[in-house]
Amino acid sequence: MTTETETGLAVIALSQRAARRLRGGHPWIYSNEFAMTPALKALPVGTLVQAEEEGSGRRLGLYYFNPHTLIAARRLAGSHADLPLGPDFFVNRLRQAVALRDKLFDRPFYRLIHAEADDMPGLIIDRFGDTLVLQANTAGMDSLLPVIVEALETVLAPSRIILKNDSPSRTLEGLELEARVVKGAAEGRVTVEENGITYFCDPVGGQKTGWFYDHRDNRAFAARLAKGAKVADFYTYAGGFALACAAGGAASVYAVDRSESSLALATEAAAANGFADRFTTRRADVFAEMERLGRENETFDLVVADPPAFVKNKKSLKSGAQGYRKLARLAASLIRPGGVLVIASCSHHMTAEHFAAEVAQGLTDARRSGRILRSSGAGPDHPVHPALPESAYLKAQVIALD
Amino acid sequence: MTTETETGLAVIALSQRAARRLRGGHPWIYSNEFAMTPALKALPVGTLVQAEEEGSGRRLGLYYFNPHTLIAARRLAGSHADLPLGPDFFVNRLRQAVALRDKLFDRPFYRLIHAEADDMPGLIIDRFGDTLVLQANTAGMDSLLPVIVEALETVLAPSRIILKNDSPSRTLEGLELEARVVKGAAEGRVTVEENGITYFCDPVGGQKTGWFYDHRDNRAFAARLAKGAKVADFYTYAGGFALACAAGGAASVYAVDRSESSLALATEAAAANGFADRFTTRRADVFAEMERLGRENETFDLVVADPPAFVKNKKSLKSGAQGYRKLARLAASLIRPGGVLVIASCSHHMTAEHFAAEVAQGLTDARRSGRILRSSGAGPDHPVHPALPESAYLKAQVIALD
Repeated sequence: MTTETETGLAVIALSQRAARRLRGGHPWIYSNEFAMTPALKALPVGTLVQAEEEGSGRRLGLYYFNPHTLIAARRLAGSHADLPLGPDFFVNRLRQAVALRDKLFDRPFYRLIHAEADDMPGLIIDRFGDTLVLQANTAGMDSLLPVIVEALETVLAPSRIILKNDSPSRTLEGLELEARVVKGAAEGRVTVEENGITYFCDPVGGQKTGWFYDHRDNRAFAARLAKGAKVADFYTYAGGFALACAAGGAASVYAVDRSESSLALATEAAAANGFADRFTTRRADVFAEMERLGRENETFDLVVADPPAFVKNKKSLKSGAQGYRKLARLAASLIRPGGVLVIASCSHHMTAEHFAAEVAQGLTDARRSGRILRSSGAGPDHPVHPALPESAYLKAQVIALD
Repeated sequence: MTTETETGLAVIALSQRAARRLRGGHPWIYSNEFAMTPALKALPVGTLVQAEEEGSGRRLGLYYFNPHTLIAARRLAGSHADLPLGPDFFVNRLRQAVALRDKLFDRPFYRLIHAEADDMPGLIIDRFGDTLVLQANTAGMDSLLPVIVEALETVLAPSRIILKNDSPSRTLEGLELEARVVKGAAEGRVTVEENGITYFCDPVGGQKTGWFYDHRDNRAFAARLAKGAKVADFYTYAGGFALACAAGGAASVYAVDRSESSLALATEAAAANGFADRFTTRRADVFAEMERLGRENETFDLVVADPPAFVKNKKSLKSGAQGYRKLARLAASLIRPGGVLVIASCSHHMTAEHFAAEVAQGLTDARRSGRILRSSGAGPDHPVHPALPESAYLKAQVIALD
């Protein structure tokens, strides 16, 4: 039988050691930290449970539970939260997140909820004005989506809400992949405002939520170095770095991506911002295109290389690391003396130190030297939970070459 | 006898292993990497030497030499540089550094030379308009100061040049400590322009070069969160974060430092910027003052804690780390719900991970939780040499508390 509190919640009893970690702010309970009784095992995925310290009975908070995953429970609230956790609970949490973003940004275009760091484990919400795009990456959060959508209506009354539930992590949680519009237009692009530039993205058919706000500050920084420059932006997607550099005064921007539809969005945005005459796209595989440009002795003043994650899991760390090294080498070989390299990795499984070392080796392989002007992560609308420093997935370097 | 090249330079012969590291871009030769012959040992400190690979005789570059230090030689130039390395050589190098800064900043207020990362090992130059403040931290660089001053005259024709040679590292190099004005006014403060704010600093009597440009971007970020806030800035020095927050719209700023003369500069700057009515200073020891404020239940919306290095050397890592933890705890206890902590460490001997862990523990000790909005280092006028990632000494975190 499952122990129940007077609230009717099942109880997970944790060792003192695990309890100490949770009291220190860590938001996860691992499946090997408590006795997985048949009763617990039978709980529906996403059930809210109470965590307690074994022996003392000291309460540790309310967690949503998944008996089938290594991370068995994720913290939603302290033990004294009113039950059930209905729309009002999430209204309060969303209002805090909105208030923080509205301090940071003039316009309502940002990551509104960044999972654990915003006390909404497993949930991503990106805001594009009055369009909201949600990603629920865990079963617990997936089961809360109806109440969260209701809370979003209260807080922001958006005209469009999209569930972009296609993260591979959902499969591990036993969830289906789906892209579903729950309010507003079923199709069509949205406008993104970032660093004073108008972009377009496709929140239903594009990657993840459709846009990568995480590079906002890195794009702004690249733009400061782009005045008069001949720029190449590899993996441009919908033109993020490319148009930032154009806005920074680039003489020309060459934007490369494998996706025709992404390049179409970038081209449309270039025209909307008045950059069309300085903007060219090329549909190509990036490595092949870099090699081709090298053979033709093409060079640039500023090269951006912001690929999708090369390291998909721990097993592919070695090959992924080699990928970043090669990317740095090929990119550096296209850069004129005195030019700038902007290179990034969004691989969760690679540390900043490792990435920096591979980039440094790539420069050496290209017989180039330089100085690192900036080593940074994601912008402040992608906060990091203090107990989960490893969740800081984005690494960007800006290097001025000799 | 010392082997000499046709250029008359003494030769240091390095193992293949060390040679490989140097070819990979590392700018230092350690004293245990070559045979310290009596002839080498007798070379005057600062002598230019040629490094070669043992056996192959492959040349590895020109280094200035110190037979008495663990880092025995630091790279100045490739093997094919014209000798002697006169003013023209440094004119070229300075022009590169100026060109990079002038891309990054609208006004001539910045770190102009950041040692190894700007290919001027051991040398710091901060620029305050037409005042230049130099710090030579190695014997080799110290001996080059006359020629570098000459080169600075050519490139920038400054009205004032100050040698602020008082870094403790000079003692290890067998150098005297001195603060000497080689051109212009012997005394008096200089104006600093940063983030649109006018500050004042004392380049002769103040700390280091008189100002800490490294926090420019962190101050700008703090300012974004300061609107309407009641702010406390601990270790304010000449008012860096305090006035940035005032400019960001803080309702009030309370600036604490132990130095009367620093607070006088901060107060003068507050008046010059029109912030005097929102600006108060207090001369006090920071820990004592934080405890006093805590006893009196004073709270703030935004607290800055940017102390001098608590970890002065490897031996003091443990006690220094405890200092940062305590600082985070005391600062967090002064912050209202929903407020912000800005905390920094400039301790070379502490990693970013370690600092983050101590800060996280300090928050837990204060029974506070939150999210890290920003983890950053120094601004781009303090570049990092790709082979010396450990030289990235500055760590700053901005944390939004619950």
